[in-house]
Order: sequence, then C-alpha cells, then structure tokens
Amino acid sequence: MKSRDRIGVGVIGGSGYIGAEILRYLVTHPGVEIRWVTANTSIGKDIDSVLPNLKGFVKGVFLSLEAAEARLGEVGAVLVSLPHNESQRVIPQLAGKAGDVVFIDMGGDFRTNDPVGYRRFYECEHAAPEWLPRFVYGLTEYNREKIRGARLIANPGCFATALNLTLAPLAVAGKLKGDVFIVGVTGSSGSGNKPSAATHHPERATNFRSYKALSHQHLLEVEAFLRTLTRDDFRVNFVPQSGPFVRGIFMTLFVPGAGIEELEGIYRAAYGQEALVSVMRGSPEVRWVQGTPRSVIGLEGQADRGVVFCVTDNLGKGAAGQAIQNLNLALGLSETEGLLIPGGFV
Amino acid sequence: MKSRDRIGVGVIGGSGYIGAEILRYLVTHPGVEIRWVTANTSIGKDIDSVLPNLKGFVKGVFLSLEAAEARLGEVGAVLVSLPHNESQRVIPQLAGKAGDVVFIDMGGDFRTNDPVGYRRFYECEHAAPEWLPRFVYGLTEYNREKIRGARLIANPGCFATALNLTLAPLAVAGKLKGDVFIVGVTGSSGSGNKPSAATHHPERATNFRSYKALSHQHLLEVEAFLRTLTRDDFRVNFVPQSGPFVRGIFMTLFVPGAGIEELEGIYRAAYGQEALVSVMRGSPEVRWVQGTPRSVIGLEGQADRGVVFCVTDNLGKGAAGQAIQNLNLALGLSETEGLLIPGGFV
Amino acid sequence: MKSRDRIGVGVIGGSGYIGAEILRYLVTHPGVEIRWVTANTSIGKDIDSVLPNLKGFVKGVFLSLEAAEARLGEVGAVLVSLPHNESQRVIPQLAGKAGDVVFIDMGGDFRTNDPVGYRRFYECEHAAPEWLPRFVYGLTEYNREKIRGARLIANPGCFATALNLTLAPLAVAGKLKGDVFIVGVTGSSGSGNKPSAATHHPERATNFRSYKALSHQHLLEVEAFLRTLTRDDFRVNFVPQSGPFVRGIFMTLFVPGAGIEELEGIYRAAYGQEALVSVMRGSPEVRWVQGTPRSVIGLEGQADRGVVFCVTDNLGKGAAGQAIQNLNLALGLSETEGLLIPGGFV
Amino acid sequence: MKSRDRIGVGVIGGSGYIGAEILRYLVTHPGVEIRWVTANTSIGKDIDSVLPNLKGFVKGVFLSLEAAEARLGEVGAVLVSLPHNESQRVIPQLAGKAGDVVFIDMGGDFRTNDPVGYRRFYECEHAAPEWLPRFVYGLTEYNREKIRGARLIANPGCFATALNLTLAPLAVAGKLKGDVFIVGVTGSSGSGNKPSAATHHPERATNFRSYKALSHQHLLEVEAFLRTLTRDDFRVNFVPQSGPFVRGIFMTLFVPGAGIEELEGIYRAAYGQEALVSVMRGSPEVRWVQGTPRSVIGLEGQADRGVVFCVTDNLGKGAAGQAIQNLNLALGLSETEGLLIPGGFV
Repeated sequence: MKSRDRIGVGVIGGSGYIGAEILRYLVTHPGVEIRWVTANTSIGKDIDSVLPNLKGFVKGVFLSLEAAEARLGEVGAVLVSLPHNESQRVIPQLAGKAGDVVFIDMGGDFRTNDPVGYRRFYECEHAAPEWLPRFVYGLTEYNREKIRGARLIANPGCFATALNLTLAPLAVAGKLKGDVFIVGVTGSSGSGNKPSAATHHPERATNFRSYKALSHQHLLEVEAFLRTLTRDDFRVNFVPQSGPFVRGIFMTLFVPGAGIEELEGIYRAAYGQEALVSVMRGSPEVRWVQGTPRSVIGLEGQADRGVVFCVTDNLGKGAAGQAIQNLNLALGLSETEGLLIPGGFV
Repeated sequence: MKSRDRIGVGVIGGSGYIGAEILRYLVTHPGVEIRWVTANTSIGKDIDSVLPNLKGFVKGVFLSLEAAEARLGEVGAVLVSLPHNESQRVIPQLAGKAGDVVFIDMGGDFRTNDPVGYRRFYECEHAAPEWLPRFVYGLTEYNREKIRGARLIANPGCFATALNLTLAPLAVAGKLKGDVFIVGVTGSSGSGNKPSAATHHPERATNFRSYKALSHQHLLEVEAFLRTLTRDDFRVNFVPQSGPFVRGIFMTLFVPGAGIEELEGIYRAAYGQEALVSVMRGSPEVRWVQGTPRSVIGLEGQADRGVVFCVTDNLGKGAAGQAIQNLNLALGLSETEGLLIPGGFV
Repeated sequence: MKSRDRIGVGVIGGSGYIGAEILRYLVTHPGVEIRWVTANTSIGKDIDSVLPNLKGFVKGVFLSLEAAEARLGEVGAVLVSLPHNESQRVIPQLAGKAGDVVFIDMGGDFRTNDPVGYRRFYECEHAAPEWLPRFVYGLTEYNREKIRGARLIANPGCFATALNLTLAPLAVAGKLKGDVFIVGVTGSSGSGNKPSAATHHPERATNFRSYKALSHQHLLEVEAFLRTLTRDDFRVNFVPQSGPFVRGIFMTLFVPGAGIEELEGIYRAAYGQEALVSVMRGSPEVRWVQGTPRSVIGLEGQADRGVVFCVTDNLGKGAAGQAIQNLNLALGLSETEGLLIPGGFV
Repeated sequence: MKSRDRIGVGVIGGSGYIGAEILRYLVTHPGVEIRWVTANTSIGKDIDSVLPNLKGFVKGVFLSLEAAEARLGEVGAVLVSLPHNESQRVIPQLAGKAGDVVFIDMGGDFRTNDPVGYRRFYECEHAAPEWLPRFVYGLTEYNREKIRGARLIANPGCFATALNLTLAPLAVAGKLKGDVFIVGVTGSSGSGNKPSAATHHPERATNFRSYKALSHQHLLEVEAFLRTLTRDDFRVNFVPQSGPFVRGIFMTLFVPGAGIEELEGIYRAAYGQEALVSVMRGSPEVRWVQGTPRSVIGLEGQADRGVVFCVTDNLGKGAAGQAIQNLNLALGLSETEGLLIPGGFV
C-alpha cells in the first residue's frame, strides 16, 4: 500500500506507556500512517529520543495539543491517552470541530453512561456528562458491530478488559449470580510512567500485596457492561493485587457452580472464533501474552466446580492492542491488521 | 550462656533451602548448639563452602547419615529436612534408638494420621503408617501444649502454614462453612534447591501462573487440621500460584459472611497475644516478612463482607522459623529464643 | 507475496530458546515460509503447544531429524540450533546431500578455522575439521559480501556478537592494542532452556556474579575475527557476568587512548549506515533492544579517554535476529526483511 | 545486660532506607539502646507503622529534629542520615552543644577535607568548611585507631566503601599506578526511598545501564582516601552501573600487573584477620552479603594478570553496617557487637 493510501492518525499523549505502545503498533501497521503525536511534557523533542525503542521507526518531534488541533484535518482518527480526567475536556473540544474523525479514548472518562457512579468511584464531578451517552464501550469481542460505526469509542481499562473477558461468557450463559469471587494480579506497567511509592523498584521488585480490595474503580465499568449481558443479580468481589513483574495481568475466578466440561462449552462458545482471545485447559502464563495484543483464557477444575484464568498484557489487549483493534473496525480495516505479531517465548 | 550449657542439636539434610535456613537460625540461637549436620550430596565438604552465607558462623563438614547416627547421643533434638518420602524411613530408624531425642520432621510424611489420604495426595504407600499417630502437628499457635511434651513433631508445609493461619480462626469462630475460596501465591524458594522448568529463571522471572488448582497436596494436612477445630461442613477451594519472587507466600481469602469489624474481633482473639503472628487492617506486604519467622494477617472489607490476607516466608514461619519455635517448646526453652531478629525494610 | 513465491526454510532444533526465536521471526517474515521444524525431545507434539507464544502463527508438529532429512528438497535454507557439539555431525551429513541449500549454524562448532583453538576452549576434538574452512563467519556488518554468496554460515554467539560489535571499529581504526579491558553482563536467556544451578530462580533472581573471568570460550571466535581486521598486538581481558534479567547483554569497554570525539568518529564511520546497529552519546539501556534484532552502541567519556557500551539481545542480534539477517543476504532478499519490528518501551 | 547499662543512641533521619537499616541493627544490639528517632516527614507517626519490618522490635513515634535536640543529653551517640547537604547544617549545630557525643554522618558532607573538590563534585559551596578537618573517615578496616577516639565520623558511601575495599590493598602494596579500570554495579536500594525515573519499577526491573561514567561523585572521597595510602600516581576509571536488583554492589577491577598468587597474598594480608571482610578465590555473589554488614573479596586470574571482585550490601557494609562498626569502636564496645547475624542462603 502506498503512503498516500494510508489513513492518517494522530496520537494525543504519546509519551506515556499506553501512548508509546500505541505508537509501537502504529509504526508497523500497513493501513494507517502517523501524522502527528502530542506530548505535553516533551514538546519539540524528537519522538525517538524519548522512546528509544522506536529509533528507526518514527521521525519528527512531539507537538503541543494546540499544534495538533490545527492539523485535525489530516487525520481520520485520533487516539487519546491522557492523564485521568483530562480527556473529558479535550475530546469534546476536538470532536466538536471534527465530527467525522474517530476518537478513541484510553482513559476512564467515557466508559459508562453513569455520571453518578463516576463521581462515586473517581471522586469528582464529570465535566462533560452530556457526552457520556455518545461513546461506545470498546470491548471489541462484545461490541464489534457498534464499534464499526462509532466515531467515539471509550477503550476499556486493563483490569476491566481482563475482568470482562473472564466474566462476560458466564453472564451470557446465565451463570453469573450472587457473590462472584475473583482475584487479579497486575504488573507495574499498569500504573503508568509516573514514579510513585507503589512502583518504586526497591519496594516493588521482590514484593506482593493487595490494594483497593472490593473497591477498585474499574468495577464501575465492569458491572455496567456485565449488566448489558444479564438480568441476574450478582456482585463482583474483586481483589486487585500488585505483583513484581512489569507487563501482564493474571485473573483467577472461582466458579463453584459449573464443572470443567460446562465451562469449556461456555468459553469456547464465546471465544472459539476469536483471533485475539484463545481458550485452553489448564493455567495460562502471563509471559505468553507479554508484549502482545492477545488474551488467553484457561480452565481448570473438576466435575462440579471450576476455576477460570485469564492472562492479558496491560498495555496490549488491556490498552493499546485493543485500541488498534477498535481503530481498525471504526476505519473499516481488517480487525487484526497490524496486530499479528507474536511475542517471545521468554 | 556457656557452650556446655547449650543443648546439642543435629540437622539431617542441611544443604537444602530449608536445612540451610534452619542452620541460619541455629548459629545465633543462644540456647542450642549445632553438633553435626548431614548432607548426602556434600559429605565431607565444608559447610560454609556450600552455604557461603554462613561463613564465619559455622565450622566443620557435612556428615553422612551413618556418621550422624553414630553421634545421636550428643544431641537433644534432630531437625530432619529430607526429600519427599525419605523421612518416613529415616526417622523411625533413628527415633527407635533414641526415644528421648526430639525429632522435628520438615517433610510431608507425618503430618496427618491418614494413610489413605496420604496415598491419594502423594500417590504412594506410606512406609511407616504405625508411626503416624505418634506425631504432633507443629502448627505452634494451635498445638502449643502438645508440642511442649512432644518427641515427634511434624512441621507443617509452607502453604499449609499460611492456609491454616488464615482459616483456623474462622473455624474456631464457627464461620468456616460451605465453599471457601482462597488463593495463594508463592515465591520460588518454596520449590527447593533442585532446578526445574518451573523455577528456570528465564521462564519464571517475569511470569505468573497457577498450578494444581483445587488439588494441591497440602490440602490433606490443612483439612485434617481444620476438622480438629470445627464440626461444620466446609470445602476449601484453593488455587496455588507461582509468582516471580523468591521468598514469601501471599494468601487471599474471601469471607462473604463476615464484615470487617467481626473479622477483626475473630483474628485479634486468635493472634492478639502471639509474638510471631500479628493482625492489621489493610493488606500486608510480602517483603515485611521475607527472611523472618513472622506472619502478618491483614483484614479489609466492608460492613457485611471481608477479605483476609496472610503473608508468610516459605522458609521462615512456613518452615525453619516454625521449626525453631517448636524446637524451643519441645526443649523447654522460651518459644521465641533465637527468633527475635527483624528483616530489612527493603 | 503469494505462498508459492516464498522460499521454503527448515529449522533444526526448534524448541530451544534460539530455535523458538528463529520461528518467531520466520512466522511474520514476508519472503520465506517454514516447511518443517525438528525438535528431538518433542517429536510429534504441536509446535504451538510447546511454544504457546506462537499460537495462531504456526501449525503442525515437530519432526524428527530423519523426517526432516527426507524433506530437504523442499527448502532453500536450514537454520540449525542444536546443543553444543552436535551440528558438527549433523550439518556435514545434510549439506553433503544438498549442496545448494543454505545452512546457518547457531552453535559454536564452525565459527573459526582453528581446530586447535577449538580443542583448547571446548575441551574436545572437532569431528569435522575439514568443514571448518568452508564456513563464513556471520557477523553481518563486517562479512556482508561473503555472506551473500555463502551456503555455509556460522552465526556468532551472543557474547561474541556484542564483543565484536564493540571491538571491531577500534580494530579497524588501529586503536586496538595491548591489554583491552571489557566487561559483559548477560541475561539468563543466554544459557538456554535447560535448568541448572546458574539459572535456578531462587539463586539468580536477586543475584549478580562473574564466571569464567579472562577465559570465556567465545574469546576464541572473537580474537580470530578481530585479527582479520588488524595486525596490531592486543589481548582481550574479558570478564563475563550473570545478571538477574532474562534478555540482553550489556558490554562495557574502557578506551584510555581515545577521547569521546574520536570515538564518535570511529563508531559512526563503522555503523552510521547500518539499519540494525545504532550509535549514540551516553549509556544505552538493555530494555531498548530486548526482543529485537538491534544493537545500540553508546559512547561516554572526556577529551582524552572514553568508554564504549553495547547492548544486544542474546536471542536477537546475538542469535536469531542476526541469523535472519544472514538468511536474507544468502537468499538474495533485502537484509532487514522480517526484522523491522520495534520492541516495547517497557 | 540491663537496660540501664546500655548506652543511649539517637537516630536523625530514621525513615529513609539507611536510617531504617540502622534501626534494624540497633534493635537487637546488646550494648546500646535507642532513645529517640527523628523523621521530618513522619513526625508523630509510630515508627513501626512506617517501618513494618520493625513491628515488635521498637516502640514510640518519630520526633522532630527540635524535639531530639532537646534530648541530646540522653545519648552517647547520634547517627545522622539526612538528605544530601543537610548534615553540614545540622551536625555543627548539635555537636557544638554536645562535645562529648559521638556523631556519625551517613551523608557525603564531611568525607573529605577538600572544600574545592566538594564544590566540583557536588556543585555547591560547603556550608561548614571549618568542620571538615575535624571528621575521621569511617572506612573501619583502615582507620580503626582514629575511629576509636573520634567524636565526629564521616561514614563512607556505598560505592566508596566497595571501591576503597577493592583498591586500598593494591595502594598499600604499591600496585596502584597509572590508569585503573573498575566497574561497579549497584542495586536500587542505593538510590534511597524517593521514587524517580531511575528507580521506577517498569523501567528498572528488567533493565541494565550505566550512568556517570568516569565522573561519579564518590570518586572524590575514594581518591582522597587512597592518596593517604600511596604516593604513586594513579587515575581511577570508574564506570557505575544500575542493575535490576535491590540490595548489593558488585565491583570488578582489572589488575593487568599482578597474577592470581600475588593478588591472593596482597588481599589476605589486608583482610585475613578481618571479621567483616573475607577473601576467596573465584567470584563472590551479591546474594551472599544481602542484608548483612559483610563484604567478600573474590580473586580470579592467571599467572600474570588478575581480576578482583568485591560484593557489598549498599545498606550493610556500605552504610548502616559500617556505621554500627564505627559506633562500636567510638563507644568502646566490641567492634562487631550487634553485627553477627547471617543472611539467608537465598
């Protein structure tokens, strides 16, 4: 494909971990072409000096948001990866001017049409509540058709993606009822590139701990999404944990009410035809998906009870990988274009 | 205390990780003195050449089991840390000759008086079933009085210790009923010093996975022990996991039927007076107990449901630390002698 | 390119780390097609069950060497990744039958035309010394023209690649004289997939140590290669070290006789036009090249003395990446085909 | 020893990593007793809530510096661990009031009597240059006699300790001449408890890089100290590196002018009688000294050239361990009191 046939895309917030991973996918994507990238803290710096892994793959400097705004006309889509709370200001401003451009938001701002829940979990008032209903929730495997026609897509968070992929098949099968018990361990890349005590190497490198047990903010979007799939009453008891690795999420769900055979039927029905989610017997391993846009569901158990595992890369299927999947759909490209690259065995 | 007042102890299997950690505690223990140490694979080698961390703390060479047997008379206690299945042959032989010597077995051979269960979980016939009822199960906080008078002590495994410390207070309080959901993550030191694929650095260092979900062999001793505390019907759904750290276990138990206040009452009643088990609100961290004989219970939750955490060092309270605790009791010493050494903050 | 236009390749030893990484590159390579893969220990197993990272990218089972031999006619090239000492038996046997097939050996067997040196460093007699002079040493940046026409290529080892890339520009510039001091730290992937004490997670994960100081076996091929570039007298004092990471080599060379400006001139002259080796001021970081076929040279220093760094992925430019580079040249493809994929920022 | 016989000590800056490690040693030290601890950022907080590893070992809250100043009379010694540049203000103020109290400074402020060098390496003017000559440099093995009588001790930095222990024996033996080449790898605990990009887990955990090559600020104190041992002309070419582990320094020194036998003679003469520095053939391992106040020197080489290694814990012999060693000497206690605790094997 010649360069002039590729669709132009812009990236807002390209120097954070999610933005950097989006760029990593875009530079080898055959159907699109990066036109500009913003990064507030690195305006004017060479992109490949800030992101040395992209040396040889990308040229040019980071722009200011204002400079990018002036070049909205060059792009068919914009991927927005901003700090918490900022995209609810930025996207309405830009999308108001360019109604045909696809916006994919990586933040938590537009993932539910629930300003009250937003206030409860994020502890602040939403700045653009009237924009909430315009967004499509970008869990690709379940919202594929809506995403195809969408201009505004709210990409799920990393824990939310793994929770949803693990729980949704049960919801569809009518097996999500009452108290649900699920533990999720995350690598440190999920915390972004801003240093903090929780990601300080001496205190993280050999450590393991939980945080926000039963009260993680991603439960907002997860429960909202799952309720679109089932009318059963359920409550997700989710315990997030921090592990001493960089990339990956490992999810463990107890299913006391379904044996291994039934589980295999349910999950193969859900994902048997999917390119980026696979199903297996036994425990998957986080390293199988590190650096990739893929998730693996694993099933273990006995005749009358089971356990469901899910591994997902925070920055892959949990963020940038799924964003590219959604970008492809919204732009009319093949869903997995630019995503068919395997990770290493180690 | 002068050397001649110290009680002599012997160590069988001193070159494995548990044996090495036992030696680490013994070399600074004010009440006992190491008389001999065996190690089948290192007979005749300097102990401090095999265990360089003990350089300056221990002299002499590893003996053969036969040489140690000839010097049984020098010791008041023997700590036995042998590969799976071997102590059921060695301990009856030695203890038959020296009835007044305390034997503390670190293996899984004598932890339940249940040869049928043993066969089911360990997949072989027990070689000395008549010795099973003679052993006291060494979960110190619950069997203290029996341990004081015991000559034969079966020290709990590392996962078993953490499971028991987490579940026993609920059993005592009559809150252990029906399906119980618990996840435990272990560091690689729990696998011992024999290299294998599961502990091969390139495949473990950035990885996370589960194994033996719902079927770990430690459930045998855990359920046997818990049934001594409650007549309620319960089933432990335990998912063991491998984390990319070396020392420590992190346990996560869901308690849908008790709020945080009730949990605090239950666990403070259980451990409020304990020197080596403490109770706190919030999540403990594995690094707080690494290299120490201590466990920390953490409690989180809401008015009507909660989560219980437990951190334990595999080789500390999960093995050597608890062995020293039991040794002290059995020899009439202060329970925490030789154990009051803090770990590092990082 | 349609499948029938792609050149068939075979892989001997596809289940080890280097073989797996070769397959990882091959599955997305637009110019070649995998026809068969052998793996002695996994004959008949699905490739993607042994290498789950390749699920969705490769089909079929591992073959025996005999089965592959019968299908030599399907391939234009064979990549051979066998345990130490085996390729000197296998390659002569196969190449004797198929003179037009390209063989790229990943082992140390054919890297020098020096059977005496081979005996000294590898402590055994070479089984096919008459084949030694037929091989081209595959350090691509320096042997590009010979590799283009070669049928037999000995791919350099990972430490050797990093040493050569670091030292060769100085040799060419006439600055490699007398005692040369260089330290190289390697990740555990360089040790392969066979568990051992040196790669046992509990003993590697937080550790750092040296081994084979001044006597590493890769010095054989390094000194042989460097002597093709200079007649000056020099002695490489190389200290290899084991670091607690999986992928990557970090090389540190002292250059007391050249300032930073002079060094920059020398290294830019050597690599300024290279696609897979870049040159920068300051220290590069191992993570920039992890999972990639690229090396980065870094330069630091003052007016009269300097330090040269080199980062390389053991399995990338240090093995499989360079093998693909050589494969491309030998098959008449573009040198970087299949290699233009960036790694992650973290 | 009864409490009233113990010597009171105060700690200024007890919540940083070095302060916390000092407290860790003090709580089990039989000859001294902690009277107060300050921590600017945690005034009024329970010490064991900030440092959970000390739970059960220490009571009380962190004080302000002012509160501590009012209680100077209770202590015979003060250990000062403040951020860069602060102790040059605090110590003169306190020591001016309490001439008989021992002050041990952990910072870089008083390690050389060289205000010009201080300005060059630390890029600011020293605030109390007249106090510089009053301090004794606390490299215990070389300044033991001066330390015994000292009231003001400047404890060496962690890199400086490892450099000095590695280089000083050569200086004494007249073998430190011309260009000296030495590489040192440090764990992240050496960077302290303040999060930064260099210690951000996602960017450190699998990484390796150099920094400040040939220009590390510790060279100031190292060269000053070494020049007290030799009049030979030498220049230390030191390359510091960051490794992905928490505790430990690994030093590698090339010695082209001395064979392994000669080196063994030199280093055994230097440290053969030392309790906390040992000498061996081969490479030591960082994990042997993690969490301990000990260093190990390793020697490798051939008849005419050699390599010297040194492993040291940043917070142990490289900071708190050596501080306790110096404290003991200055207070007239046995040098190793409170320090004879082994680390773990893993």
